[in-house]
Amino acid sequence: MSLDDKAVKPHDRLAKALADDMAAVDVLIGERMASENAPRIPEVTAHLVGAGGKRLRPMLTVAAARLCGYEGTFHHNLAAAVEFIHTATLLHDDVVDESRQRRGRPTANLLWDNKSSVLVGDYLFARSFQLMTDTQNLRVLSILSNASAIITEGEVLQLSAAEDMKTSEETYYKVIRGKTAALFSASTEAGAVLSGAPETQVEALRDYGEALGIAFQVVDDLLDYLSDAATMGKNVGDDFRERKLTLPVIKAIAKADEEGRAFWKRVIEKGDQREGDLEHALELMQANGALEETRAAALGWADRGRARLAELPGSELRDMLDDLADYVVARLR
Amino acid sequence: MSLDDKAVKPHDRLAKALADDMAAVDVLIGERMASENAPRIPEVTAHLVGAGGKRLRPMLTVAAARLCGYEGTFHHNLAAAVEFIHTATLLHDDVVDESRQRRGRPTANLLWDNKSSVLVGDYLFARSFQLMTDTQNLRVLSILSNASAIITEGEVLQLSAAEDMKTSEETYYKVIRGKTAALFSASTEAGAVLSGAPETQVEALRDYGEALGIAFQVVDDLLDYLSDAATMGKNVGDDFRERKLTLPVIKAIAKADEEGRAFWKRVIEKGDQREGDLEHALELMQANGALEETRAAALGWADRGRARLAELPGSELRDMLDDLADYVVARLR
Repeated sequence: MSLDDKAVKPHDRLAKALADDMAAVDVLIGERMASENAPRIPEVTAHLVGAGGKRLRPMLTVAAARLCGYEGTFHHNLAAAVEFIHTATLLHDDVVDESRQRRGRPTANLLWDNKSSVLVGDYLFARSFQLMTDTQNLRVLSILSNASAIITEGEVLQLSAAEDMKTSEETYYKVIRGKTAALFSASTEAGAVLSGAPETQVEALRDYGEALGIAFQVVDDLLDYLSDAATMGKNVGDDFRERKLTLPVIKAIAKADEEGRAFWKRVIEKGDQREGDLEHALELMQANGALEETRAAALGWADRGRARLAELPGSELRDMLDDLADYVVARLR
Repeated sequence: MSLDDKAVKPHDRLAKALADDMAAVDVLIGERMASENAPRIPEVTAHLVGAGGKRLRPMLTVAAARLCGYEGTFHHNLAAAVEFIHTATLLHDDVVDESRQRRGRPTANLLWDNKSSVLVGDYLFARSFQLMTDTQNLRVLSILSNASAIITEGEVLQLSAAEDMKTSEETYYKVIRGKTAALFSASTEAGAVLSGAPETQVEALRDYGEALGIAFQVVDDLLDYLSDAATMGKNVGDDFRERKLTLPVIKAIAKADEEGRAFWKRVIEKGDQREGDLEHALELMQANGALEETRAAALGWADRGRARLAELPGSELRDMLDDLADYVVARLR
């Protein structure tokens, strides 16, 4: 690896190393999201799946398989399946979000969007299971169907926890293990299993994926309060407005004095939010260390992921996955 | 079989013959719809899955497996999987329907319902794939994941066809093969495949399931215009109001004179529906034979299903499945 390579982002370096694999994954994604019987489907998927995105999860699958010496082509199927599950989840999340943004927009249009999002999401779920079935590997099917169930459980649990000030850090981690980390860990684990890797390597890669997913979500939840300051943020304060009990808020509530508790009760539990409340929330979280502790938690999870990776035999790919753990938390700097 | 048995409905007779199997399926459904991590899930599923219903699709799976001499227990998994896919589809259809009924109802409540319907539907999809994976039968997994994709394609195609007066009978059959018949045929085919039945039997049972599903949907679409007359109908005219191009309407449009075409154009294409329009639509469909032809089509599909069954070795179960084809169209009498 040259010095030039060192200068690019870890995600880009991994993408470059796996370029041939990822190109094959893209082809497969394009083929399988098409539908002869319902031409409207590719119209809807095109801007989502086709637009590219970081492809972080499929890249993890491909990297895990390659790291364990896989030489077949079914890791492309798994990678495409993982991306379809992720995209289906996004589409279904959109249904909820679009409902919230519905005020003032034409209803017929939104109805059509809701229908399409639900049905095309279902289509991608079904297609992902076809892709997995192609691999003829039952253990991989088991890992990914389990992950699909756990993702949904996490999202349902999040519904129950929303607006509930008693939500604990334990519940928060249960939610994000489900809605985010489950697919990260299934991505790495399935890649390793497909390769017939020894059980210790499978477990190490699964745990790495899980820790990476947790770190990723904690960073996301922190950036929802910070990204404005870092001039990144179009969505700053979304979680606050939606009264989500994310880690920074849970920590801030735990540390709050009586006045602080009254504030959180009003804005989160009662949903009575006024001009300047978001700024005040930020001040509170800054003052009592909730933001700094959340940041430390994210860095801690990235470290845990790296520690599990260290148990695998050394290789260039392993180093890149190690860097990827840095990349995930680098958004905080 | 006694004369007494002959007097009960074919569906009840089949349910009685398969009572032990169906009880085991119910237990499995109860177990698998639970969720330790998200207690809200069983609350939502309980009134849907738990309420029972006819369980027509899982019964077809169990019957097909038994008919082909299966002696294991994985047909219970498949039957539960098929019911979960069906229930998930209903839940996601509800999202669309609830959106339509949204006017005048509190938004927050509806939002919650939408979220739950989408997420719990996803959960049941994931659970169905876990149930299938348990069978360790890759061909069965392939049949049911294909069916899941085709169901969604049918529903998306229905979206495009709605309100479009140029919709042909060919498109109509494509839609209902997807949204209804695909799961019926996968139910019987998967049962037969699980049993290791010879290919000719697998194909005969698959075709029987498909014809039964088509007959079932044509009857449903006809009853949407007729059930009022038969004093069954709480939902008469729903398809008319939603401007769906179902078989009775497609046939009526094809046979319409200029005045009739103008009427259909106004009520279906433009959606300008007035008092008395449904009654006028019924008169037109009665007068030009559209209703009678639709009825004949349903009976024809039931006959096709029975003809395929006749190719299987004779048995009591086969006779019951034969009766079931009558039962499906009996709703028309």
